[in-house]
This record gives sequence, structure tokens and C-alpha cells, in this order.
Amino acid sequence: MNLDQLLNNASHQSNKIVALAAAADPEVVEAVKLAVEKNLASFILYGDQKVINEMLTMHQITPSETVRVIHASSDQEASKAAVTAVSCGEADVLMKGMVSTSVILKEVLNKDYGLRKGKVLSHVAAFDVPGYERLIFVTDSGMNIEPDLSQKIEITKNAVGVALTVGITIPKVAALAAVEVVNPAMQATLDAAALTQMNARGQITDCIIDGPLALDNAISSEAAEHKGIKSHVAGNADILLVPSIEVGNALYKSLVYFANARVGGVIAGAKAPIVLTSRADSAQSKVYSIALAVNSTR
Amino acid sequence: MNLDQLLNNASHQSNKIVALAAAADPEVVEAVKLAVEKNLASFILYGDQKVINEMLTMHQITPSETVRVIHASSDQEASKAAVTAVSCGEADVLMKGMVSTSVILKEVLNKDYGLRKGKVLSHVAAFDVPGYERLIFVTDSGMNIEPDLSQKIEITKNAVGVALTVGITIPKVAALAAVEVVNPAMQATLDAAALTQMNARGQITDCIIDGPLALDNAISSEAAEHKGIKSHVAGNADILLVPSIEVGNALYKSLVYFANARVGGVIAGAKAPIVLTSRADSAQSKVYSIALAVNSTR
Repeated sequence: MNLDQLLNNASHQSNKIVALAAAADPEVVEAVKLAVEKNLASFILYGDQKVINEMLTMHQITPSETVRVIHASSDQEASKAAVTAVSCGEADVLMKGMVSTSVILKEVLNKDYGLRKGKVLSHVAAFDVPGYERLIFVTDSGMNIEPDLSQKIEITKNAVGVALTVGITIPKVAALAAVEVVNPAMQATLDAAALTQMNARGQITDCIIDGPLALDNAISSEAAEHKGIKSHVAGNADILLVPSIEVGNALYKSLVYFANARVGGVIAGAKAPIVLTSRADSAQSKVYSIALAVNSTR
Repeated sequence: MNLDQLLNNASHQSNKIVALAAAADPEVVEAVKLAVEKNLASFILYGDQKVINEMLTMHQITPSETVRVIHASSDQEASKAAVTAVSCGEADVLMKGMVSTSVILKEVLNKDYGLRKGKVLSHVAAFDVPGYERLIFVTDSGMNIEPDLSQKIEITKNAVGVALTVGITIPKVAALAAVEVVNPAMQATLDAAALTQMNARGQITDCIIDGPLALDNAISSEAAEHKGIKSHVAGNADILLVPSIEVGNALYKSLVYFANARVGGVIAGAKAPIVLTSRADSAQSKVYSIALAVNSTR
């Protein structure tokens, strides 16, 4: 499985609908255009109808069943309308446009009409790394700053859920630390050991968890053998669970900037996948994120 | 400057001497052979003379002024002798052979004959990353688990010292975090801001420090511009100061395994550079580490 196969899968189930909050932005409309060209999904664009229509014209998109526009007079109203569309089943995926993350998340977490489901929302990134034939998922590099064990359990479950829906049977989860031994002075190793044992006891299912593992042990069989690590995960991890947002961010950026990896990302843990792309993401990355989200809907 | 230029520099100052503690190991002797072939340094090998001599014969090395053997009957004795050789000026670099890190560090830190100088020993890694024309230093990915601000000051000074000795004038230090804004909930951003201001006030000299910076802002001018960051460091960092050992380890391994970077590393902060290679390091990496250490001697 790689990101282009995800694109392909998504284009074969193109009945999915993305509710896009605050779409009145050229880069957002550009991403919509690319996604529609790839036949990934239909879109409902919420925001200033006049401005959005001008941008659609500029991008030579004619409003149709595939790209509908619904007027909203503020970012908050657009966010509420998009969230409501998803929670009542009119749309399958929520996507953030030009609205601040805090505004849209407030609507997502609203108890009356929001998309609250699990205990924790977390970011799941799927990477195509040159030289690696499988998708490598990294979580959570964007939402939870310093997750404790309870949060790591939810973060793991969220990522396993995404990996399962894109077709990875029994994902292998490496709980990362700086070393592969349990060290009482290193919290990441203690949490990793606890997660491993919770998996062994059937408390976290549908995956195989092993940790602590350093990154090399997790993704290189040779490095794991060097250390004499016997594990079903070592060398073959599908999901890299990072101990903190700093590790996640550095690993994410290192993959994109140093290793020239391609990436798509989604927020998991709500009733539907959420796409939160930022200006810094390439157009290609935005399209992969939409494809990952469409694949993550059941 | 890149690692091959470091090799070249080291071979032009080949009067440097490496004291190697516990050398009776085929892989260690192999590294010595490669280093001698590159004309990097002379070596004094401490350990079981009979065993070391057999290994030298196996590797077709004849003991000479370039490779001397001094008998030691235990790892502790070999470590003590090698440390003493460096502290009394007989040798310029200390190198760890087949002895556990804790045994040799105990001798390094000995108050009577050890190599104690600054307050903190820290690991400094120098990377050649494909596509980047300058050396990128990462610190500390190996010694200090969760450094506080005081330790980060010393870690920064140690890395700046190494960068200066290998010829980088006024190294640019990026204090890494997950975001580029100061966030009271993220200690890495607070420490980064403090380090930046200490540098501005002349408390940390011979370098330019800026932070918090996320990895992309630190190494990509385009990413920094996207975020509107004005900085002499952003996009051009020489030294990446990581907030924890987990970040350092993940970044280090990501560079080696995902980005195919070449690396050499040295422990700084003692009276002389210390080479602590491990079995997992490639022969090439061991040679780069020796070259970096030889360059780091003043």
C-alpha cells in the first residue's frame, strides 16, 4: 500500500462527500480542484458564496453536484454548518479551510451537534518514504503535546483504526523511545512497555504493539538483529507511536525535508475523519490527505 | 564543509594520537585499520596485548609508531590507562573500544586523573545529508535524557566548540521545538526563547542562537518564509539543538535510515574529544567519528 494506491482506492469510491468549512481561499479551492480532477470526492464548500463562486470561476470549476456552495456569513457559521453536515450524515469527511484550528475544533467538540466520539483526537500521518515499500504511519505529531499513557492508548487506537480502514491487516505498532530497553528514568520506555503488555493482555486489540524501540530497531530488521531484539514489530513497524509532539514534529519534518517522503494526514478519533491541512502543505500533500480521509471512512 | 573534507583535514594533521581503551575486538581493530589507511591519526591500543596482537596480525597491521599496543589486564585498567594518556598529553583523543560506556565514563569523570572540564558531557553528531551542502550538527542525541535549561546551555556551548574547531565561523544554532511560537505549555519553546535571549545578551557567545524553531523552519528558507519568520538562523541552521534524547534519537536515526545521511559523532565537554562508537555504527561512520574527533582537538 502506498499513497498513490490510496488515491486510486479513493477514486473508486467517489460517492464520498467532503464538507469544507471556510472555503473562500485560493489555495483551498486549488486543492478542491485537484481532488475533483482525481475523482476523489464531492465537496460542499461553506463560506462566503460570492467570493467562493469567483474563485471557482477563476479555477474554471462550475458549481454542480460535485462541487456545491452553501453560504455562511462567518468562519464560525461555516464551521458549524460543515460539522453539522457530517454529524447528520450528509457528508463523510470534515475539512478545514481558511479558519483557525481552534474555531473549527470548538464546533467538532460541541456536545449537541459535534463529532465527539473517543476520548482523544489525534493526528495520523501516512508517509511514502523512498526505499520503503509500505506506508509508514506516524502519530501523533500534531495534536497532543505530551500525551500520558491513557492518551497514548487512545492515540494508538485512533492510528490503528486508520491503518485498518486503508487495508493494513493487524498493523504493527512500534512505541518509540530513545532506547530499546526499559529505563526507569525514561518515561517513554515505561509507557511503551505498558502499551506492549496491554496489547498482550488483550486490552488494545487489532494490532501488535512492541516497545520500547528506537526508530532504527522499528524500521530496520538489520538494526533490530544487531541489538538481538526478538519481536514481530521490530524492523517491520507500520505505525510509529512517538512519545511527544517534539519527536513527532522532528520526525515528520525530517521525513519530508531530508528524506523527500510524501505525506498525507488526517485527524482521527472523531465520528468522521477530519482534514486539517495548512498553508505550508504542498498541493500534492493536501490531495493525499483528502485521499487518506476518504479511505478512512468506513 | 562536509565529512570527506573533515577526513581530508584530519589526514593533513596526522600527528594526532588516539588512545583506544579495550581494543581487543575485531570490529574495533578494523576501524583502526581504516583510520590508519586514511592517515587520520596514530593509535595506542590498550587491552590484552596477546589478543590485540593476534587481531593486528589478522588485519595485516604491524605494530609500529602508528599503532602501538600497551597491555592492560582488565577493561577498567585499559580505560584508566587510556584516560591518563590523554590527560597527561600523550594522546589527543580518547576512544572507547569493547568496554561498557559506564566503565570508561567513570574514568573520564575521575577527579584525580580524569578529563573533566565543563559541567556537562554531550554528544555532537555531524551529518552529511544528501541535497544539503553544509554539515548539519545534531545535539544531544545520546548523553542527556531530558536536559534542563542549564544543561542545554552547556550542550549548546559544547556543540558550538566542535563546530568552531572544524572551521564553521559563528555557527547558527536552532533551538528546536514542535512550533515556532513561544507556548507556555511547551517547555521546549520556553527554553529555546531563553537560550535565544541569553545569546542576544552575550551570555552564550561565538554563535547565533534562534528558537523556538520547528525543524522545517530551521533548515528550509522556504518553510521559514511561509511562516513569516525573520531570523539569521532560520533556513540556515548549522546546529540543531534538540529538546530531549527522544527527539535526538529519532532525528539521528531518521537521517541515517530514511535520508541516507552519513554521520560522525563525538562526545564533547571533556578536556579532549571522546569517540564512543557502537557495534551498530558502520565502519564508515566510525572513521568519520575519528576524523571529527581529530578535527575537534585544538
